Amino acid sequence: MLIGKVIGNVWATRKDPKLSGLKLMVVEIKEGSSVKSIVAADYIGAGIGDNVIVVSGSSARHVFDNETPVDATIVGIIDSLE
Amino acid sequence: MLIGKVIGNVWATRKDPKLSGLKLMVVEIKEGSSVKSIVAADYIGAGIGDNVIVVSGSSARHVFDNETPVDATIVGIIDSLE
Amino acid sequence: MLIGKVIGNVWATRKDPKLSGLKLMVVEIKEGSSVKSIVAADYIGAGIGDNVIVVSGSSARHVFDNETPVDATIVGIIDSLE
Amino acid sequence: MLIGKVIGNVWATRKDPKLSGLKLMVVEIKEGSSVKSIVAADYIGAGIGDNVIVVSGSSARHVFDNETPVDATIVGIIDSLE
Amino acid sequence: MLIGKVIGNVWATRKDPKLSGLKLMVVEIKEGSSVKSIVAADYIGAGIGDNVIVVSGSSARHVFDNETPVDATIVGIIDSLE
Repeated sequence: MLIGKVIGNVWATRKDPKLSGLKLMVVEIKEGSSVKSIVAADYIGAGIGDNVIVVSGSSARHVFDNETPVDATIVGIIDSLE
Repeated sequence: MLIGKVIGNVWATRKDPKLSGLKLMVVEIKEGSSVKSIVAADYIGAGIGDNVIVVSGSSARHVFDNETPVDATIVGIIDSLE
Repeated sequence: MLIGKVIGNVWATRKDPKLSGLKLMVVEIKEGSSVKSIVAADYIGAGIGDNVIVVSGSSARHVFDNETPVDATIVGIIDSLE
Repeated sequence: MLIGKVIGNVWATRKDPKLSGLKLMVVEIKEGSSVKSIVAADYIGAGIGDNVIVVSGSSARHVFDNETPVDATIVGIIDSLE
Repeated sequence: MLIGKVIGNVWATRKDPKLSGLKLMVVEIKEGSSVKSIVAADYIGAGIGDNVIVVSGSSARHVFDNETPVDATIVGIIDSLE
């Protein structure tokens, strides 16, 4: 899973109806020395500024019903890394 | 999901018949400091210049019927990121 | 999907029998400022020098019978990008 | 599979209940000249400092019951590379 | 599929029992100007120094029985690229 930080919300009026009701958030992922931003569906009530665990690929669908067309889902809020 | 910008259409006369009728678009994806172009199937009527959400991997098929051989699909037009 | 250019053929006498009869081609993929070469199965009769669309991941199997162990398949020859 | 080194534990009180009971560890992966950190579920009792084999993608779920929403799982402790 | 060169064996006494009996090899993959090392299961009797074709992702499982938790499998020994 990826370690990221939630930095914003994504608003999209026109979208696949299968995404309706999902909260989509922008998550910043550090990969070595570079940083990239992705969109992840939120499953656990994450907020901006939270450090989160993001599951990617087909497993992101398994958080839901396996039919929701997402490839990244926030599955945990990190308390600490030690 | 990836955040991208639609920059063009792809025309391909010779292709897998399972892709017939799909609108294929070139989408520019920013990854850190570099930019790459991919081809995504359009599911929602995106146009050139739109900022879009692209779902990748097997979830890109789930937007359709799970049999269409695509690995990237435009599933939303971004109104705003905040 | 990825945009690539076919630059060669791959010959492999010893291989998984499930790949027998498949034409395997070397395709150059541009990712930002760097270029990488991958091997893709050809589904549509592509030739060296063709600009092609390559589908990756599990969708590459869906072009065939979903059992062929490939992770990249050439599914279209690009006429133009505009 | 990826070669990594376990460098820590991840604590997350708020998480997808399907992850409950899983030990989540931070694993450092070397990719060429850069290093990135990912979170992997531990299946074999790895400890901090261990050099490990990490399986990624949907195969990370196959280590468990195919429903656990993980995309990286520690499946081996490396004795030696030779 | 990826083009790689086998550079070693991986020994792991403690591992997921579903990996027992599999030969795990270190394969060097060139990606543009950088080189990374991955672990791949060998399906065809590859040896150190061989140039090989590696299939990745869920297709790596399809080489076996679709249950073996691998994400990279050596499926061919390259005779020549031309």
